[in-house]
Amino acid sequence: MNSKKVAIVGASGYSGEELVRLLLSHPFAELTAVTSRQYAGQPLARVFPRFAHHPRARALGFSEPNAERLAREAQVVFLALPHGVAAEYAVPLLEGGCQVIDLSADFRVHDPAVYQEFYAHDHPAPGLLPRAVYGLPEVYRDQIRTASLVASPGCYPTSILLPLIPLLKARLIEPEGLIADSLSGVSGAGRKAELDYLFVECNESMRPYGLPKHRHLSEIEQELSEAAGRKVILQFTPHLIPVNRGILTTIYATPAKNGADRTAPDFATRLNERVARCYQDAYAGEPFVRLLEGKALPDTKNVVGTNVLELAWRVDPRTGRLIVMSAEDNLVKGASGQAVQSLNLMCGWPETAGLI
Amino acid sequence: MNSKKVAIVGASGYSGEELVRLLLSHPFAELTAVTSRQYAGQPLARVFPRFAHHPRARALGFSEPNAERLAREAQVVFLALPHGVAAEYAVPLLEGGCQVIDLSADFRVHDPAVYQEFYAHDHPAPGLLPRAVYGLPEVYRDQIRTASLVASPGCYPTSILLPLIPLLKARLIEPEGLIADSLSGVSGAGRKAELDYLFVECNESMRPYGLPKHRHLSEIEQELSEAAGRKVILQFTPHLIPVNRGILTTIYATPAKNGADRTAPDFATRLNERVARCYQDAYAGEPFVRLLEGKALPDTKNVVGTNVLELAWRVDPRTGRLIVMSAEDNLVKGASGQAVQSLNLMCGWPETAGLI
Amino acid sequence: MNSKKVAIVGASGYSGEELVRLLLSHPFAELTAVTSRQYAGQPLARVFPRFAHHPRARALGFSEPNAERLAREAQVVFLALPHGVAAEYAVPLLEGGCQVIDLSADFRVHDPAVYQEFYAHDHPAPGLLPRAVYGLPEVYRDQIRTASLVASPGCYPTSILLPLIPLLKARLIEPEGLIADSLSGVSGAGRKAELDYLFVECNESMRPYGLPKHRHLSEIEQELSEAAGRKVILQFTPHLIPVNRGILTTIYATPAKNGADRTAPDFATRLNERVARCYQDAYAGEPFVRLLEGKALPDTKNVVGTNVLELAWRVDPRTGRLIVMSAEDNLVKGASGQAVQSLNLMCGWPETAGLI
Amino acid sequence: MNSKKVAIVGASGYSGEELVRLLLSHPFAELTAVTSRQYAGQPLARVFPRFAHHPRARALGFSEPNAERLAREAQVVFLALPHGVAAEYAVPLLEGGCQVIDLSADFRVHDPAVYQEFYAHDHPAPGLLPRAVYGLPEVYRDQIRTASLVASPGCYPTSILLPLIPLLKARLIEPEGLIADSLSGVSGAGRKAELDYLFVECNESMRPYGLPKHRHLSEIEQELSEAAGRKVILQFTPHLIPVNRGILTTIYATPAKNGADRTAPDFATRLNERVARCYQDAYAGEPFVRLLEGKALPDTKNVVGTNVLELAWRVDPRTGRLIVMSAEDNLVKGASGQAVQSLNLMCGWPETAGLI
Repeated sequence: MNSKKVAIVGASGYSGEELVRLLLSHPFAELTAVTSRQYAGQPLARVFPRFAHHPRARALGFSEPNAERLAREAQVVFLALPHGVAAEYAVPLLEGGCQVIDLSADFRVHDPAVYQEFYAHDHPAPGLLPRAVYGLPEVYRDQIRTASLVASPGCYPTSILLPLIPLLKARLIEPEGLIADSLSGVSGAGRKAELDYLFVECNESMRPYGLPKHRHLSEIEQELSEAAGRKVILQFTPHLIPVNRGILTTIYATPAKNGADRTAPDFATRLNERVARCYQDAYAGEPFVRLLEGKALPDTKNVVGTNVLELAWRVDPRTGRLIVMSAEDNLVKGASGQAVQSLNLMCGWPETAGLI
Repeated sequence: MNSKKVAIVGASGYSGEELVRLLLSHPFAELTAVTSRQYAGQPLARVFPRFAHHPRARALGFSEPNAERLAREAQVVFLALPHGVAAEYAVPLLEGGCQVIDLSADFRVHDPAVYQEFYAHDHPAPGLLPRAVYGLPEVYRDQIRTASLVASPGCYPTSILLPLIPLLKARLIEPEGLIADSLSGVSGAGRKAELDYLFVECNESMRPYGLPKHRHLSEIEQELSEAAGRKVILQFTPHLIPVNRGILTTIYATPAKNGADRTAPDFATRLNERVARCYQDAYAGEPFVRLLEGKALPDTKNVVGTNVLELAWRVDPRTGRLIVMSAEDNLVKGASGQAVQSLNLMCGWPETAGLI
Repeated sequence: MNSKKVAIVGASGYSGEELVRLLLSHPFAELTAVTSRQYAGQPLARVFPRFAHHPRARALGFSEPNAERLAREAQVVFLALPHGVAAEYAVPLLEGGCQVIDLSADFRVHDPAVYQEFYAHDHPAPGLLPRAVYGLPEVYRDQIRTASLVASPGCYPTSILLPLIPLLKARLIEPEGLIADSLSGVSGAGRKAELDYLFVECNESMRPYGLPKHRHLSEIEQELSEAAGRKVILQFTPHLIPVNRGILTTIYATPAKNGADRTAPDFATRLNERVARCYQDAYAGEPFVRLLEGKALPDTKNVVGTNVLELAWRVDPRTGRLIVMSAEDNLVKGASGQAVQSLNLMCGWPETAGLI
Repeated sequence: MNSKKVAIVGASGYSGEELVRLLLSHPFAELTAVTSRQYAGQPLARVFPRFAHHPRARALGFSEPNAERLAREAQVVFLALPHGVAAEYAVPLLEGGCQVIDLSADFRVHDPAVYQEFYAHDHPAPGLLPRAVYGLPEVYRDQIRTASLVASPGCYPTSILLPLIPLLKARLIEPEGLIADSLSGVSGAGRKAELDYLFVECNESMRPYGLPKHRHLSEIEQELSEAAGRKVILQFTPHLIPVNRGILTTIYATPAKNGADRTAPDFATRLNERVARCYQDAYAGEPFVRLLEGKALPDTKNVVGTNVLELAWRVDPRTGRLIVMSAEDNLVKGASGQAVQSLNLMCGWPETAGLI
């Protein structure tokens, strides 16, 4: 395989740090630059002692983010920056000939008006939107292979879209009335010095937040609508849970009315079989989606540190509803691991390189 | 106030231990006996060092549970036992003239057939069911005052019933399609030496369990149906979360169709006002229900160690749905504190005695 | 009992919040004012929802700290402020006729030069030092009863002094070579928005810090020297542990050389008996020191939320050393509970009022 | 490199599971068998869902441990069994021509009488003791390369020996009076269904245990004595801390009396330099020992999941003592990672293979 030089802009947050971890051990990617306004001039190993023993980390140090220099030093650049800021770097990097994988929200939503509605400022680079590919490999694999700009999905969206898209495409569930109830570890809030995320404020605490109109709804509804072939509105409630990593999402869906006679005695059995077949068709060959069998249910501890999303479902014969549950590591499949999955596709490497 | 002698049968589990804590500091109750098969013969202070400094704890020791002796030593007896076992003690204690507050599921469900369906064995004392009062003071305060047998509600049921009963009674929501998504701390699983509840298996883990037909549904649906005046079926998903204590429940409800024009521009505002008024009417005078105002949302850390249930709600104008959230301490308002609240009512003491 | 009006200056930190909790339930103290620069003008119940259900909390709101007004509103004032700042309030409050209980370090060290050495600024009110009594009731009970200014001990000092002072006074251990290795929950760092105390940075982490010359050594060594009748230097290593509350201290001491023949076959047995007798003499009647018996060892979960310090010891026949271990709640016996214990003494109330 | 077939006997505990994780990703080792009495007959991926996505895990299933069959299926066998049991398998496996890496205590102590003293039963295979090499690569690298039986060190011993051995060999510290105060995550207690290790009993708890004569002292003192050239007795206190993984050890040592004039004004500076040089000499080239510089102190979160031991030290000019601190992952450098390090040496592979 040909190796490629890669860089990370904004490597001091949790997603950036996780990208560093993954790329240091990647068999084909060569990490040549990491930037951070805050830590510019410091060795990577001093800021993140956990990487100090890695032979490839020794030569790396944080630099100021400079698009021109980055374009010379790297062929692919990851942007792990706040929304609004990411676009500022994407433009010159693409002009400089780099491929860009953006982990922010800047290029996930096709419609700049929706972006404005959810992010409360004008889109910083609407001209690039047509080039951007939504970086969910299980859905857009072919487009990612040839993309120059990948908008890597958010953590909540990944945990909701992978369970729902196959069901909507197969018309197994109604596009109305969908609910996603999600639990997130505290790293999802980023490395920010705010009282709300202090250890004592989060430990022994469980709390909802950001409802009913969380920003991630913009990309989730876009992709659900795409799969359903019509507008989908989602009820979404995120909760903050005292774990470092992980997202657990429980989804409530109504089986498609024309596909199932809910009064039939074998309704639940038959629906269960159809859902199983649908997921098998969609994911049996996917290296990073794990369909749980038997009595097993998702547990974030089984996916933390990996790029795998666990998925299970139950039909409730009492309510006629379908419940789907997923678990992922918000920093891996929900952010940096998925971004590396896109990198592998863009570079023609095996999709699992550096991820298993 | 007249004091009364009280006893706890099965005081070695988490609910029993919490009862000990509350009753040691109660101004009118005198704790005269605590029983435990496992610890019989040992001083309370050795088994639970945390009580050792309490002057009243020094004289207390665990004894074998013996209904005859308990009936002589106490006027009110708490049963903190597994379902099925509790009924064995309730019968002779009631015959012996005691008042009984049962924290198990044995007397919560009126219909022995429903009990059999959910608990998988015949009801052990169906003859007592007509005497049993469901111990939710906010709903059955008058009946509890004169009850000889109180069936104290389960932890999940409390977190779901207090938010939903006023809305159903006021016909503000549809009784169909209700969903309760709950998060529980690990003490909810009891003090049981099982691999699933080891520190390493729970810490850094989030997982659903027991869906879609959790045993607590039997009492929840009974009480919701009572409030709605018709049969209610609930979708209920519990999750295990790495905190010691606390339940956080998020409820999804559909506003009553005949009470609101969801297409009206002020639909959300008006529904919000009606819900606020409904909750004010129901709970403004309640010492243990806290209606959150403004942007505040429930957080278990604000109720742990107290008998308070926090409650907030949001109308989502995008989906037309009402979301209600509650937080409680599963061992206090969800178990032992609520049982003491019933004790206070039964004894004619101030309802908040020993609880604030 | 006569009640008294009390106030808390700086009630928004963790110690201040814990003082609020204790004083709201105190049978004789009437909390009339709580101050906070940051939250001035806001109701107490909004800033700390956990107090909202308390009847006495409803009328309370945060005000700007103003010594003149406080002196009118309260007879006893608690200062829960950073060192250096506390003294600014102590002076006018004492002049205004208040009794002052200071939880900061400002009046703990008798010698302003030592204060300057450890706190790196001049003492702000050296003239008050002679009036200040070190608020460790088990040692200075009589002086506290008549004090106008009590310097309540630090959290680490309490966990070290209560185990060591009786042994030093009885000349059972050498004053040389003492080592205290302490573990603290994260609330010990205060409610400060700093990266180091974020949930993700503390959870799944254990780390030493602040060695070898932690500020608390100034007061610890002063009191150990007082007990030993000669200068004592302590080796002290604090560690940060992912729990909300609690301090666990393990102390290593050398038995006094002239009191024990370490080569005698019954050396360990006899030393063990002498230590037991020493601790019995010192603490058997103390309501807040729990001497553990048999195989029991301290565990912070048994003291969290209480004003109790647990204490156990072992003689190691292989090394000839005495190991003493203590556990306390850093915010209760290590701060606010101990301050209330002093309040009780100063007001002539039962020492355990509001604390059991 | 030539690959080799390896097997794990007792792969269902935490160390065994960690061995599975490391060996599945090892570039040269081929994991051909995993055994477990409890799970025999079940696929690996069902028992440990976290491995289910690994291509190599799919074919693996748990089998009954059978030495004869294992000797046919593997060239190197790891024993992750309780002490006493491990020896039963070591004998036939060695006779069958396997190399054996034992993670239990059975072959760590050379003297069967010491084994009997600390483990309370006769040594099960004293005849093998002369063949066993203590598997601490930083000390016994050459012997490990040619060993047929490696006794991989315990978790606490590793965290104590790596800091102390170079100092003792260089005669920089006195061999008398050494103290090691250690903190361990709960996985150190093993995957055992006991009340003491339930989530609720460990979370929000800190507690010492097993003092003053923990079993690991047998191997620690053997190795310290070897390094010092004379008998060393250690004071050792382990504590249980609510984290999944990690050991943090704080060591107190007295600088060698003939090597330093403690009254000299530059005593601390000079001792510090000598210690730095000593550690540089010992560990500068070691891939898995990280000497921290500047103000950095060990933190278990920086080593969890890696085979690295972090090490820092401070000279306290006030006490004249040297304090050394280390952090490691108890399941990696403290168990399975170190065992793989030995595997690499025994097989002639790069020492870091599969570990970075």
